[in-house]
Amino acid sequence: MHYQFETIGTIHSCFKEKFGIPRQPGLATEAEATLELLPPYNQPDTLQGLEGYSHLWISFVFHQNINTPWRPMVRPPRLGGNKKVGVFATRSPVRPNPLGLSVVELVGFDRSACRLHLKGVDLLDGTPVLDIKPYLPYVDAIADAKGGFAPHAPEQSEIEVIFEALAQQQLAEISGGKLPQMMRLIQQLLQLDPRPAYMNNKPQQREFGMHLHNFNLRWRMEGKRATIFEIKQVAV
Amino acid sequence: MHYQFETIGTIHSCFKEKFGIPRQPGLATEAEATLELLPPYNQPDTLQGLEGYSHLWISFVFHQNINTPWRPMVRPPRLGGNKKVGVFATRSPVRPNPLGLSVVELVGFDRSACRLHLKGVDLLDGTPVLDIKPYLPYVDAIADAKGGFAPHAPEQSEIEVIFEALAQQQLAEISGGKLPQMMRLIQQLLQLDPRPAYMNNKPQQREFGMHLHNFNLRWRMEGKRATIFEIKQVAV
Repeated sequence: MHYQFETIGTIHSCFKEKFGIPRQPGLATEAEATLELLPPYNQPDTLQGLEGYSHLWISFVFHQNINTPWRPMVRPPRLGGNKKVGVFATRSPVRPNPLGLSVVELVGFDRSACRLHLKGVDLLDGTPVLDIKPYLPYVDAIADAKGGFAPHAPEQSEIEVIFEALAQQQLAEISGGKLPQMMRLIQQLLQLDPRPAYMNNKPQQREFGMHLHNFNLRWRMEGKRATIFEIKQVAV
Repeated sequence: MHYQFETIGTIHSCFKEKFGIPRQPGLATEAEATLELLPPYNQPDTLQGLEGYSHLWISFVFHQNINTPWRPMVRPPRLGGNKKVGVFATRSPVRPNPLGLSVVELVGFDRSACRLHLKGVDLLDGTPVLDIKPYLPYVDAIADAKGGFAPHAPEQSEIEVIFEALAQQQLAEISGGKLPQMMRLIQQLLQLDPRPAYMNNKPQQREFGMHLHNFNLRWRMEGKRATIFEIKQVAV
């Protein structure tokens, strides 16, 4: 049996590519996105009462995975990428139906423009949204639930994040008044260690890059130190 | 933009009709269901590792609402059914995409048969399932989230549930060894007061019925008292 669903909105996110996106929502609190409702759903009435909620569930499509064939077992990064687990025991983006689900912070919204401002996102730019539901703590917050192979948040990272002077200067020019926030965001993301799981704890020096907001970020990993050496504006 | 999803499983639930289903999961802990994976998803490997989790997210289709036109505002029962709220500020089953989301307790599962045993459900029998994801307390349990017009569970009901002798005898015959559990389930459901919101606190005596498991239940409401006067087996 098949069911067809329509995109009700689009995510405009700081994450312009998959690499570097936190693996769950809420891990990088400075990661922002805007959810824009699309016609015919962009009716201010649909959002009335949303101001009473601090968090929302976003049901979305892993749109860059719709053509990736699913497999019964996957290797979650939390298990170091070398142990297989059943796909339904994970939140892998490669799954029978490429449906995503994230709880995000609702910072505010512009009812007339039908735009919601979200924080703590793990959503790729351009993500198609299928539904928005309020987070109900009395139903959804089950503090004593058993969390399988990921019972707690990833351990506080020991990664030290350093901006080279030139990179910091480049970021200041690009980000205008938002420099402190951008520095916090970059620090949060690199401390989550976006490298593929099999590379963790590898001592070799290697360079990485990611496209964030309107800039490309490049950094070098040496042991537990991430050194940002280049930040270049990207033409939008 | 449209996306098509396939049913990966079906719910076999104690709830054989919409009337009487709790309005959120977890409210009637004795409400049970089985989730059966369908081909080609019924591969035991997909469930490996699920034993580490106590709760699951079930993404499903409100299949009895797929042809009901959505409206920008709805009247949630929690507001007495007489105040309108934006559809995205509610979990109404009538919404732009009839997608449902419930956190349920995973009591156990039979891997080789690809059947999961769930408790605390608010799912109609025959519900098509689109996805199963583990509940991760470190991500999903946000105890201090602001819960809008439903910040807490419905107040402890003052409804007194009484079984007439004949009805209890009928239930004993039908339910075999499960009589105590069935009585608890019925008590939980009637205490949640399944009547339409506009009828709450109406003093008039009225009769109601619902189809639960393999029986039809009939009860009478008088003030705050629910008297069960008939339980009849239904041919399956």
